[in-house]
Amino acid sequence: MRERFTLPDDVLYLDGNSLGAMPAHLPAAMADAVSRQWGHDLIRSWNGNDWWGLPTRIGDRIGRLVGAAPGQIVCGDSTTVQLFQAVMAAARLRPGRSVLLTDGDGFPTDQYVVDSVGRTAGLKVARVSPPDVAAALSDDVAVVALSVVDYRTGEQWDVAGITEQVHAAGAVVVWDLSHAVGCLPIKLDEVGADLAVGCSYKYLNGGPGAPAWIYVASRHQDVADLPLTGWHGHADPFALEQEYRPAGGIERARIGTPPVLSMLALDAALDVWDDVDMQAVRTKSLRLTDTVIAYADAFLPDVSVVTPREHARRGSQVALRMEHAYEVTQALIARGVIGDFRAPDMLRLGLAAPYLSYTQVWDAMEQLRDVLATRAWDDPSFARTATVT
Amino acid sequence: MRERFTLPDDVLYLDGNSLGAMPAHLPAAMADAVSRQWGHDLIRSWNGNDWWGLPTRIGDRIGRLVGAAPGQIVCGDSTTVQLFQAVMAAARLRPGRSVLLTDGDGFPTDQYVVDSVGRTAGLKVARVSPPDVAAALSDDVAVVALSVVDYRTGEQWDVAGITEQVHAAGAVVVWDLSHAVGCLPIKLDEVGADLAVGCSYKYLNGGPGAPAWIYVASRHQDVADLPLTGWHGHADPFALEQEYRPAGGIERARIGTPPVLSMLALDAALDVWDDVDMQAVRTKSLRLTDTVIAYADAFLPDVSVVTPREHARRGSQVALRMEHAYEVTQALIARGVIGDFRAPDMLRLGLAAPYLSYTQVWDAMEQLRDVLATRAWDDPSFARTATVT
Repeated sequence: MRERFTLPDDVLYLDGNSLGAMPAHLPAAMADAVSRQWGHDLIRSWNGNDWWGLPTRIGDRIGRLVGAAPGQIVCGDSTTVQLFQAVMAAARLRPGRSVLLTDGDGFPTDQYVVDSVGRTAGLKVARVSPPDVAAALSDDVAVVALSVVDYRTGEQWDVAGITEQVHAAGAVVVWDLSHAVGCLPIKLDEVGADLAVGCSYKYLNGGPGAPAWIYVASRHQDVADLPLTGWHGHADPFALEQEYRPAGGIERARIGTPPVLSMLALDAALDVWDDVDMQAVRTKSLRLTDTVIAYADAFLPDVSVVTPREHARRGSQVALRMEHAYEVTQALIARGVIGDFRAPDMLRLGLAAPYLSYTQVWDAMEQLRDVLATRAWDDPSFARTATVT
Repeated sequence: MRERFTLPDDVLYLDGNSLGAMPAHLPAAMADAVSRQWGHDLIRSWNGNDWWGLPTRIGDRIGRLVGAAPGQIVCGDSTTVQLFQAVMAAARLRPGRSVLLTDGDGFPTDQYVVDSVGRTAGLKVARVSPPDVAAALSDDVAVVALSVVDYRTGEQWDVAGITEQVHAAGAVVVWDLSHAVGCLPIKLDEVGADLAVGCSYKYLNGGPGAPAWIYVASRHQDVADLPLTGWHGHADPFALEQEYRPAGGIERARIGTPPVLSMLALDAALDVWDDVDMQAVRTKSLRLTDTVIAYADAFLPDVSVVTPREHARRGSQVALRMEHAYEVTQALIARGVIGDFRAPDMLRLGLAAPYLSYTQVWDAMEQLRDVLATRAWDDPSFARTATVT
């Protein structure tokens, strides 16, 4: 699979959990998208190149990777937007209940959006760690919104168990798969998920800012009341009616005109996945994270492994806690070893199984060992300034 | 300016009001975006190629074209999403008032979104034609949301006059500039607009589904309460705090990670506009629409001109009413004359001044005359089926 990607020769890329590597055929695919589909075919591409069908066609392709039968995922807009859409719709599935639960250590956007839905819909928000969800549930909880994998520590939560607990309390669960899609064999249908969202620019390698997606389980589609009512989600979009009549099925989760060029990049990127078994990806991912953990245990006495050692509780990244983690991250990047820093004291390494070799991971860890042993991080050029990762 | 665009030789393109033509340098710009910025620079591009600054940098470039001083526009996500964001924020600027006014003949999404905000915020929605806004205003009206140009008829509304009326009643106005940006010399600051949105794939030629944008007048920025609270709009995004603290200035209108590839296409497309005087664009646009109208008057006895003849009341498109308008549109497209159909009986011709010549417009009208005179539209292959335009 590694030959399906282009990576610079002078880089060891352990940041695929932030922005995935570029599939090798992307330049040709984008040249076609721009010159032929836009430049030559122009407006005719909506039919002729089926731009209209992109959101659901891509949705079904992603569905195969997250255990969702066709017709339950639509792609478009950003993760924030899809989260708002999902959490609002989830809350409306449980009128009369007044509490939204979310993870107080979850990704900030997830917390901000749940707070915003709370303010908008007049609901209270409570924060809880995923293992403590059961204790926090009551018949007043409408929605539980959680990520599958903790974005900092890489801890994977018990999706099946928590979903069952939430349902037993009569509530609805919204899963954020941003750090899970493309690295874990998720089974949305099998666990009975209600709604889910995810991004496409991490392990799916869809390109910077690749459009996010939303899953609405079939059983909820006819009653899902989604707040972002663009004309693409209308039952008869080209009738251009005054009143919104939501489409049947997952089409109602369409919003407005999606970012077609970004969608075409993602659609091409998904070609990489068509013959891939997610269980095989998972197996290699675990071997790679095992390698990082074993290396840290053996050779990095001043580093502690934050990510769980138990396989079932681990995503596809490893967080290493250390002093001067920010400067260490910068020193590694200067050597072409790209990971990222998460405040206050973590180096985060993403292990994308499709394009990372064991040798590359070992070499990256050797560089880390050297940076620590030689105090190469102790250089003014690596001092903390405003940062974007 | 025409040399800045690539158009197929066998096409007369009068649909730039739906999807603008491709600037000639776009293939090179996108090749750089994909191969170098994503493929080689990877995550480092957020700083190194200033992906982080794209939403506001593009915002300021659009600002120059719509009379907005820097620091009031941010780009990202779809028009639907930005409309929801703007109308919700506008309603929150006028708590205690209970009515939203919108145009009952406006673009469907605009009506659907206002209805959705009404349901979400517990407000009533009333529909009114823009010239009748004054009569519909009261001290219970919170927001008036209108398009600058009617998407079907091409009628331009009195932005300055209506804004003044709305303000006199103590309400807030949200303008949709989708059919105005890039063809009319709009003056958002000068007329005192409150909020505005627009799309970028029509007259701005930003590419299919190019990200939309939102304008929040400086005077409202510190109190604007926007519902889509993604981490990019946080006062200190990389502190990754639990609680949302909106950024100062227009940065608070950022949402989540935007569709970077689509943004880079739009950013490149805006190069076309840097030395352009919008008044010159307007002058040529009027001459082009005058040509269409004069031709219809002189040579098309069975066609009626729906678009206003008064320059001040006209956008940059002409709608022609005729029998069999759908079939006529298809027959024209088969000849390479691309306009579009709007139910029930209109052929809509978009006149994009930057790349259309008078000769091309004349030739297109000659084709229309011939299609009507020879009944070329009366062919089973042009009969109405499901359509996407």
